[in-house]
Amino acid sequence: MALFISFEGGEGCGKSTQIAALAARLTNRGIPVLATREPGGCAIADAIRRILLNPANATLVPRAELLLYAAARAQHVDEVIQPALSQGTWVLCDRFTDATVAYQGGGRQLPSATIETLNRIATDGLQPDLTLLLDLPVEEGLRRAIGRNDQDGTAHEGRFEAETLAFHQRVRVVYQQLAESHERFRVVDAFGTVAAVAGRIDRVLDEFLAERGIQL
Amino acid sequence: MALFISFEGGEGCGKSTQIAALAARLTNRGIPVLATREPGGCAIADAIRRILLNPANATLVPRAELLLYAAARAQHVDEVIQPALSQGTWVLCDRFTDATVAYQGGGRQLPSATIETLNRIATDGLQPDLTLLLDLPVEEGLRRAIGRNDQDGTAHEGRFEAETLAFHQRVRVVYQQLAESHERFRVVDAFGTVAAVAGRIDRVLDEFLAERGIQL
Repeated sequence: MALFISFEGGEGCGKSTQIAALAARLTNRGIPVLATREPGGCAIADAIRRILLNPANATLVPRAELLLYAAARAQHVDEVIQPALSQGTWVLCDRFTDATVAYQGGGRQLPSATIETLNRIATDGLQPDLTLLLDLPVEEGLRRAIGRNDQDGTAHEGRFEAETLAFHQRVRVVYQQLAESHERFRVVDAFGTVAAVAGRIDRVLDEFLAERGIQL
Repeated sequence: MALFISFEGGEGCGKSTQIAALAARLTNRGIPVLATREPGGCAIADAIRRILLNPANATLVPRAELLLYAAARAQHVDEVIQPALSQGTWVLCDRFTDATVAYQGGGRQLPSATIETLNRIATDGLQPDLTLLLDLPVEEGLRRAIGRNDQDGTAHEGRFEAETLAFHQRVRVVYQQLAESHERFRVVDAFGTVAAVAGRIDRVLDEFLAERGIQL
């Protein structure tokens, strides 16, 4: 049975590094894995991502932003995630529906009913089997994210990093609330070295597989 | 009081010609008018329109298409239509929410509950004061539309024109049903010369204004 695992967390929590590392470990164990991300993951969703991240589109209104995320997600689910799962490939996804609840709901404070409705339409009901929340104090995450952007010269998440500390605190609180209210969530402490966090993820995953009686 | 008038109808019904002509007549009467269209009408919505109409995006799934139309509409409403109406400018819009019901609901047969939900989110509740349905037999409209595309070398509505006759018949039927069930609709016979149709639009508009006791 192919698992769909989403990775969530604030800026600089190490999601993309940990996804790459877990994908490599699973591949070594002979498990077919697809690592992907939102928004994006296929050509049409990437085109939508470019509209979302283009600094020239500063007048983008919150409702349109929300609908664009949903459009990218619908395409990503149908074109990439569902076909991979159907073929028995595990999917590791950098952000999914919970990110919309945390960033647009918690951060931007858009109505949660609208967000839930759009998540349902976008996913056609698909949910992750397991969601790993890489949790980190906001100040530490932003320090890491800003260092990373300075280093690689990109500003790919720049418009969220530019938000206030209060915005990021709200995002973290909503993520923690989601983790408490959804059985599929596991909170992983994202402090420490890449290897230390990877070790925690392995333990969480092994426990999850054991609970479900899944043998690899 | 500034009026919001949407123009609806199948391919080749003459909407854009009649909008330009009505805008000119209203301007001559000293009424401030903005003529706009969907999808599009502002830079962000135009960028979304390019994704929708790009032949390279043939794998665009129906849910993503619907969400992109809604995103373009949300931006168009907030950035263009609402500000114009607030300033006392009349808005003549080439297609609005009814087009989504007719094309995605009737034509593509997507669930009407999803379409209505997305229309409500996209418009934030804004509805046209008056909707003019330019009605024409499907065969006549397609004949005109194909002639127009041959002439100007574009294929801007090509992906809908390529649909089956049955698709366009469903679109027309849904438009007619909408006209019967919404008080804001007026059906205008779109057969005949540009001047003949313009005369019918003027009579319908004069009647509408008289009913409402609106003096220009």
